[in-house]
Amino acid sequence: MSGGRGTGPAALRDKAAALDATDPLRHCRDLYVPADGLVAYLDGNSLGRPLRATAQRITNLVAHDWGTRLIRSWDEQWMDLPLRLGDRIGEVCLGAAAGQTVVGDSTTVMLYKLLRAAVAAAGPERPEIVVDTENFPTDRYVAQGIADETGARLVWVEPDPAKGVTPDLVEAALTERTGVVLLSHVAYKSAWIADLPEITRRLHDAGALVLWDLCHSVGVVPSDLDEHDVDLAVGCTYKFLGGGPGAPAFGYVAARHHERLRQPIQGWMGHAEPFVMGPDYRPGAGMRGFISGTPPVLGMVGIEDTVDLIESVGLDAVRDKAARLGRFVIESVDELLAGHGVRVTSPLVDEQRGGHVTLAHPRFREVYRELWAQDVVPDFREPDGIRLGLSPLSTSYAEVAEALVRIEALLSAG
Amino acid sequence: MSGGRGTGPAALRDKAAALDATDPLRHCRDLYVPADGLVAYLDGNSLGRPLRATAQRITNLVAHDWGTRLIRSWDEQWMDLPLRLGDRIGEVCLGAAAGQTVVGDSTTVMLYKLLRAAVAAAGPERPEIVVDTENFPTDRYVAQGIADETGARLVWVEPDPAKGVTPDLVEAALTERTGVVLLSHVAYKSAWIADLPEITRRLHDAGALVLWDLCHSVGVVPSDLDEHDVDLAVGCTYKFLGGGPGAPAFGYVAARHHERLRQPIQGWMGHAEPFVMGPDYRPGAGMRGFISGTPPVLGMVGIEDTVDLIESVGLDAVRDKAARLGRFVIESVDELLAGHGVRVTSPLVDEQRGGHVTLAHPRFREVYRELWAQDVVPDFREPDGIRLGLSPLSTSYAEVAEALVRIEALLSAG
Repeated sequence: MSGGRGTGPAALRDKAAALDATDPLRHCRDLYVPADGLVAYLDGNSLGRPLRATAQRITNLVAHDWGTRLIRSWDEQWMDLPLRLGDRIGEVCLGAAAGQTVVGDSTTVMLYKLLRAAVAAAGPERPEIVVDTENFPTDRYVAQGIADETGARLVWVEPDPAKGVTPDLVEAALTERTGVVLLSHVAYKSAWIADLPEITRRLHDAGALVLWDLCHSVGVVPSDLDEHDVDLAVGCTYKFLGGGPGAPAFGYVAARHHERLRQPIQGWMGHAEPFVMGPDYRPGAGMRGFISGTPPVLGMVGIEDTVDLIESVGLDAVRDKAARLGRFVIESVDELLAGHGVRVTSPLVDEQRGGHVTLAHPRFREVYRELWAQDVVPDFREPDGIRLGLSPLSTSYAEVAEALVRIEALLSAG
Repeated sequence: MSGGRGTGPAALRDKAAALDATDPLRHCRDLYVPADGLVAYLDGNSLGRPLRATAQRITNLVAHDWGTRLIRSWDEQWMDLPLRLGDRIGEVCLGAAAGQTVVGDSTTVMLYKLLRAAVAAAGPERPEIVVDTENFPTDRYVAQGIADETGARLVWVEPDPAKGVTPDLVEAALTERTGVVLLSHVAYKSAWIADLPEITRRLHDAGALVLWDLCHSVGVVPSDLDEHDVDLAVGCTYKFLGGGPGAPAFGYVAARHHERLRQPIQGWMGHAEPFVMGPDYRPGAGMRGFISGTPPVLGMVGIEDTVDLIESVGLDAVRDKAARLGRFVIESVDELLAGHGVRVTSPLVDEQRGGHVTLAHPRFREVYRELWAQDVVPDFREPDGIRLGLSPLSTSYAEVAEALVRIEALLSAG
């Protein structure tokens, strides 16, 4: 029995099969390491699946680059890897010309470094940092910490539940004392896509700098950083970029700021001449100066492979499938789950929604636990949200349908 | 023809073979991934070799823990891994009771976090940071950066070329305004072992805190941090702990300081309740509060395996072989290379020398390049040093002998 407007599980599964059959990215699914026993994986926006190529390359890296070439691999390939891979992410996913993106550190640490740099560059006359209350916790906590240590003041923007963080809301928070605005391109809970071009334009008009958090957009929603004159950005690589658990972040700093911005964690790897090991720190030119310590090589393999795959199919095709998967969720909820009182808390319009859809229902905490027990794996978000991550390269319509059918059955079973 | 006191290459190789045959750790060498084509690896103090078990476990981790369990692995094993593995390093290598060691970040970032915490705890009445001029560049650069941003002042200790950083030299630098002393347990160039117990005692008498850098001692020289009342320590895991290229650092903070010390990079992973994602940052109890971002899981496998191996043979046995390998180098230089003017710039007394021996000669820059071309891989250190890293678990006497024979041949041919 269906709890919605009449479309039952069988019809939904048929519809998903038809969509999978004509999906232009369907061949990509076979490129991933098979996940035996997993019925549906809908958490690729927390931890993306590994490509078979990545599994093979990591095995080879341990045996050859690490195990045999050993320290020589630093000379042969690893010293410039953070910059080379940064450039690839920039080229394929960010619309960023070479020399502005670097890979390294955790997202939290990279965010700290770039926000410290931006706050210092904004100067004491502009001590206000604008953040939104629905930004990812690390963004809020890092900003709080930096405010405490630098004397900056946080100015909070409350997103509109029906529109997310709009240009008008941001503009209302701007003053002559605004130094830096820290926002997420795609909201981690709701999937609202912020209007990055318009927000960036307005805050520039007010004399502020922007630091965009691209964690939930990179690899699934284009950001075109150069075109929109973005100042700084950070992002995560273990979601849509396939870097694996705890893979390093990336940081972007527009070339026009390189001379002016200095990050605070002065390590030997960011030195202009790392192996001279001289008495004083002198930051390397461009993005080298934004490196601190030795970069985690094993975590970079999957990023490289996933960026290659995104390039081969085109980021627009990935974006398009994310929108279609989301629309499929929304239509299916309407047909199958609305009668149970399930609400869609993500934007209904494709152009406003990133690579996930969040549904809400008072019983979702227990439903979520049951789903996991059935090897159907979405995410839970406080207080009552089930977040369906839609990774266009690895997620099938059939997986999405199966998750929704199971949710319906669990709600029906009461 | 030999350039030294008469012992030729053949005799040296024979001596090495005899030492290898009676080496109590000789079985360990077979546990490592074979490095085809490599004649002698003497840079395990820059990048340690991978264990076969690690290669296998990383392959399995990608296929199973990452590829199949996916996000569920965070619940099942990874959330506590930085603390669990920290405890293992503490137990086996540092003489540290559980709950005081955590794994994460690069060494540079971990050092920054702990030094910032220590400087803040020392307070404005004690704004002086004591550092030595031969400390590893990152230590000096991080300290400079923190001095610049906090208004602290660096007080430099110049090591005695014949004795390293002695307690008397450190004591001479202490004042009523000394807040923190940052020193390396084993010096990266010379391998001098600092007198950690005595230096810690004297600086405590002066009311200062100590932060020991254990990068070049952990896994080869015991430090007994709890016994000697050390305050803080950091260390590197890709040298003697086998974590692989760019594997994460560890940090140690004595339990008595947990309430008082706060690190500056407030990330969601260090929050008391990471998944509540509430409005304010509240640091987790104990070492959780010293975590910032998502820890790099792939880089922790090798550490775990190597720590297990060290435990199984005993750290004292590892330390003993490091001393014997070093003595073998020193005796062999005396016999084979002294006539060429090669000098040993590391301590000659076993108890004063860590896990490497540095030799000096005006022609070593070119000799080093030639050695690499012959697949004999030591390290070069400015201005004229060849540093022979002696990893007791993976290095044979035969490798050491071969390197010295090749050096002799190159100097003779020169």
